Amino acid sequence: MNSAQRIFEAIVTTRHADGGIHTVPLGFRHEGDAVVLSPFRPSTTLDNILRDRHAVLNLVDDVRIFAGCLTGRHDWPTEEARDIPGRRLAGALAHMELRLDRVEDDPVRPRLICLQVHAETHAPFRGFNRAQAAVIEACILASRLGLLAEDKIRSEIAYLAFAIVKTAGPEELEAWGWVVGRIEDHFRLMAPGGSA
Amino acid sequence: MNSAQRIFEAIVTTRHADGGIHTVPLGFRHEGDAVVLSPFRPSTTLDNILRDRHAVLNLVDDVRIFAGCLTGRHDWPTEEARDIPGRRLAGALAHMELRLDRVEDDPVRPRLICLQVHAETHAPFRGFNRAQAAVIEACILASRLGLLAEDKIRSEIAYLAFAIVKTAGPEELEAWGWVVGRIEDHFRLMAPGGSA
Repeated sequence: MNSAQRIFEAIVTTRHADGGIHTVPLGFRHEGDAVVLSPFRPSTTLDNILRDRHAVLNLVDDVRIFAGCLTGRHDWPTEEARDIPGRRLAGALAHMELRLDRVEDDPVRPRLICLQVHAETHAPFRGFNRAQAAVIEACILASRLGLLAEDKIRSEIAYLAFAIVKTAGPEELEAWGWVVGRIEDHFRLMAPGGSA
Repeated sequence: MNSAQRIFEAIVTTRHADGGIHTVPLGFRHEGDAVVLSPFRPSTTLDNILRDRHAVLNLVDDVRIFAGCLTGRHDWPTEEARDIPGRRLAGALAHMELRLDRVEDDPVRPRLICLQVHAETHAPFRGFNRAQAAVIEACILASRLGLLAEDKIRSEIAYLAFAIVKTAGPEELEAWGWVVGRIEDHFRLMAPGGSA
């Protein structure tokens, strides 16, 4: 096991060339003082960071934002970042404003080594919620639909649903519905005779 | 599904009659302004709260504390609470100081309706980490060893291990080792010819 390589899941906001904001879930690592992002190519986030040299890492526990970004719901409220050009999610519990320090290029997953320019806490951690974790796992399944067998996905969703039934609040139920709907749509399209 | 009933997992610290601190993982709900705890009987936490009328809810993302409390490691650093008699975990990202308002009694799981006296944020949320969520799920399995079939537990642990391998840092690896060790000990004792 890779003992120094903890990965956290966050929402990254970057600026398009026209100033619009791009909002996507992305994992990150701390490596010493640096924050390392490794988006798969091709990636709008990668393009934006290479051009703009900045990004905001939003530490979010509203899983609707993760599920929403995977299902075409990208329009979450933002506020101006403090020390870099860009915007942070209004709903973030905390955020980090990052400056790109250097790139370790790679044809599949370049590593963007960033330095923290500013960090801010907006609201307290509310505690672990098993339904939130289940939504995150379902998001990861939904992002790999072409790579995994239908049986495997269905059995994992059935397992994750227990935590939803037992521990979800309204936010988690809404997010779960979006992700499971996305997965069902995929299987409907893949089925013999399936259509959009 | 029970849409208003989100359950968060926290570490509750209460005072023994002799002033010592009792530290245990416990789920809680927000119901309007109240925080509701429902420990199963028998419960030292229940006894302590009924006697002392106070508790501290520690919102913790160091999963070693969850796994530690399940495996005999209860001695985590604490600091004085601010507005109630008692102590909070030094490692908490946030904590709430609670006063018992009333009890809805029940032979299995009494409901302790508490009011928040004080709340404080100590450190920012670091983001979702799938390995932390896997440790929480493993803790729940480990707390139900007598109730679940060995096959079911082993297959769930195998599933959860993927998130550990991919996303754990040192804290999560240590916590995972404690919980899986506890589960293995149980099966060893349960096996034909097993002994302590």
